[in-house]
Amino acid sequence: MKKILILGSTGSIGCQALDIIRENKDKFSAIGLSCRSRIDNLINQIREFEPEAVCVGNAEDAKRVQNEFPHLTVYYGDDGLVQLANIDCDIVLNSLMGISGLAPTYRAIEMGRDIALANKETLVTGGALITGLCEEKGVKLLPVDSEHSAIFQCLEGNKGREVRRILLTASGGPFRGRSLESLKDVTVEQALNHPKWSMGSKITIDSATMMNKGLEVIEAKWLFDVPADRIDIHVHPQSIVHSMVEFCDTSVIAQMGLPDMRIPISLALNYPDRLQYGGSSLDFFTAGKELTFEKPDRKVFKCIDLAYRALEEGGSYTVAMNGANEELVAMFLKGEISFLDIPDTIEKVMNAHKPGKAASVEEILNIDKEARIMARELVRR
Amino acid sequence: MKKILILGSTGSIGCQALDIIRENKDKFSAIGLSCRSRIDNLINQIREFEPEAVCVGNAEDAKRVQNEFPHLTVYYGDDGLVQLANIDCDIVLNSLMGISGLAPTYRAIEMGRDIALANKETLVTGGALITGLCEEKGVKLLPVDSEHSAIFQCLEGNKGREVRRILLTASGGPFRGRSLESLKDVTVEQALNHPKWSMGSKITIDSATMMNKGLEVIEAKWLFDVPADRIDIHVHPQSIVHSMVEFCDTSVIAQMGLPDMRIPISLALNYPDRLQYGGSSLDFFTAGKELTFEKPDRKVFKCIDLAYRALEEGGSYTVAMNGANEELVAMFLKGEISFLDIPDTIEKVMNAHKPGKAASVEEILNIDKEARIMARELVRR
Repeated sequence: MKKILILGSTGSIGCQALDIIRENKDKFSAIGLSCRSRIDNLINQIREFEPEAVCVGNAEDAKRVQNEFPHLTVYYGDDGLVQLANIDCDIVLNSLMGISGLAPTYRAIEMGRDIALANKETLVTGGALITGLCEEKGVKLLPVDSEHSAIFQCLEGNKGREVRRILLTASGGPFRGRSLESLKDVTVEQALNHPKWSMGSKITIDSATMMNKGLEVIEAKWLFDVPADRIDIHVHPQSIVHSMVEFCDTSVIAQMGLPDMRIPISLALNYPDRLQYGGSSLDFFTAGKELTFEKPDRKVFKCIDLAYRALEEGGSYTVAMNGANEELVAMFLKGEISFLDIPDTIEKVMNAHKPGKAASVEEILNIDKEARIMARELVRR
Repeated sequence: MKKILILGSTGSIGCQALDIIRENKDKFSAIGLSCRSRIDNLINQIREFEPEAVCVGNAEDAKRVQNEFPHLTVYYGDDGLVQLANIDCDIVLNSLMGISGLAPTYRAIEMGRDIALANKETLVTGGALITGLCEEKGVKLLPVDSEHSAIFQCLEGNKGREVRRILLTASGGPFRGRSLESLKDVTVEQALNHPKWSMGSKITIDSATMMNKGLEVIEAKWLFDVPADRIDIHVHPQSIVHSMVEFCDTSVIAQMGLPDMRIPISLALNYPDRLQYGGSSLDFFTAGKELTFEKPDRKVFKCIDLAYRALEEGGSYTVAMNGANEELVAMFLKGEISFLDIPDTIEKVMNAHKPGKAASVEEILNIDKEARIMARELVRR
C-alpha cells in the first residue's frame, strides 16, 4: 500500500489522482490532502478518503474543517503546507499552482519522499536546488506533466545512451496560427478556451501565451539534464504525441496517447509499474489518424524566447520571469490587463532584473516577490 | 572488439552492416562472410575486411575464391553455411534470403552466439524451435527488421509491464489503394518499385503482396511472445513510424526514424548501446511533417489473412505458407506466373496442406520442399 500525500487535491490533477486512488484502493491510500479555497470539495474528499492530515488556505477555513473532523490534523497557509509535507508517506504528488509548490516540495525531499511533480514552477524557480537535494537524498522526481512523462517514458531503457535532442510537443493553444495584431483584444474567455486539454485557469492562460511551453523547456532541462539548445519545441495540434527523444543513432522514441492526464499521473504514482487502465485505446484510424508537426511562431508567442533567454542567463532570471508571469496571468484573469501585456511586461521585468543569488527557498521566494512588484509597476508603462 | 559473422554479406543488409563495421573499426570486425552468387562483390569484401572464413553458393565459386585467397577457409552450399556458423564469433548477422537462413541460425544458436536477425523466415518456419533453443542456450535474438527493431526499442525499459497491443506499421507497398482487379496484370517492374525502402527483390515482392507484413506478424509473435490477436497492422505510407507498442495504461510508445536500415542494424550489432550515427536527423518539419495511418485492405492483400490463418492453425502451416510463397515469388520474378497467382496459390497450398511435425530443422525443410512442389503443381490450376 502506497501512502500518497496530495498537495492541491481539489484541482484538476488532484481530483484525477483521487479517481485513480479510488479505483485502486488495494494499492494506494490518500494520507494527506490540501486545497486553497475549495473547502466544500475538500470536506467531501476527507469524508471519502479519510486522510490523517490536511491543509487549507486560511485560519478560518481550518477552524471550519477542524470542527467537522475533530480527530483530523488541520494546517493552513503556506507554512501549513510545509508542515503537511512532514507527514509519513511514500510519495508526494505536488499539483499546487505556481511557486507555492516550491517550499513544501523542498521539505518533502528533505524528508526523503519521492515526488510526483505536476507543478513545473518548482523546477523553473528552484531547478538547481531541488535536483541537487534529490540527488543528495536519493529521491526520485517523477514527472506528471504529460510532456515530461512522455520524455521520461522515452528515456526508460535508454539510460546511459546518448540523447541527441528532446522534441517537446505543444498543442499550440487556442491562438495557434494567429497574428500578433489579432491577439491585442482577446478576452479572458477566449484565452481559457483550450482546444485539447481541460486544465486549471493559470496553466490554460500559460498555454495561450505559450509560456507554458517555455516553462516546460526549463523543467525538461532540470529533469533530464539536457541543455536548452538540445530541446526543440514542435507544435503538434492533435496532442497525441506527448513528446519525443532523438538518440545518437537518429532513432526517435515517442510516447503517444489520448490527451488524458490519468496516464502520466498513474505512471508516476505506480512507478516503476504501469497501472492497468480501463480507458479507451488510442485509435490510429480515428483520433490518431493524422499527426502533424509545425514550427512554433516565436514572433507571435514571444514567451518561448523569453524562457530560453532566462535559462541562458541562468540563476535568478527564471525565478523573475516566472514571478512576473504568475502575477500578470492573475491580473489578466481579473481583467486588469490585456493578453499581450503578459509577454510585454515579462520582457520588461527581465530587462530590469538585477541578477541575485537563488540558492535557497527563501532567496527564491524573495526574488519572486520582487519580480511580482516590478511586474505591477512596469505593466502598461 | 566484437567479432561479427555476416551470413549474406553481399545483399542490401549485409553491405550496410559492412559500412557500419568500416566506420567503426575500433568496435567491430567481420570474422566471416557469405554470398550465394555475387562472387566479385565478395572478393572485394574479403580484400577489405580480411575475414577468417567465407561461404559461397557452389564448389566452382569456392575454388575460384580459394585460388585468390590461399589462406582463407572457404565453404560452399547450404552445408557450408552451417559449417561457417561454427566459427568463433560474438554475434551472427543473419541476412540470408528465405528459409536458407534457418539451418545456419540454428547452428549458431547451438554454438551460443547472439543472433542479429534480418531473416524473418527463420522464425516464420522455425519459431518454436529457434526461440526454445535461444532460451536453453541463453542466446539473445536481436531483431534487425525495422519494424521489429522498433518494437524491441519500444519494449526496452518496459520489461514485465503488460503489453496490450503491438501496432505493426506497413508502408502499404507500391500497390496501396489499388483494387484487386487492377492488380491482375501488374508487371515485375511495377511490383519491384517500392515507394519507401530499397531492398532485395524477394522482400520487395513480399511488400507488394503484403505477405511481408504477414511474415512480420508471425515473426513478432515469436520474438515478443504476444499472441496474433494482439498484433494489429497499421498502414502508414510515410514509413516514419516503424512500429508501436500499446501498454496496459493505454500509453503508446513508438519508434520513428528516416527509412534507413542502418539504425536497426547498428543497434543490433552494438546492443545494448546505441551507435553514434552521423546521418541526418528525422526532421518533423519536412519528412516527418505529416504522419497518417489507415487500415490495410485485407480483401485486396489477402496474404495478410493467410498469415494470420497459418499462425492460428500453427505447427507446419506457417512453414507450408512460407515455402509456397518463396517458390511463387521466384516464379513471378522469372515472369512465369502473374502477381495474383501468388496469394491465390498460397491459399490453395494451405487448403491442401496436411499438417505434420515441424519440430526439427530437417522436418521443417522437408515440409518446405513439399509445399514448393505443391505450389508448382497448383499454380494456375
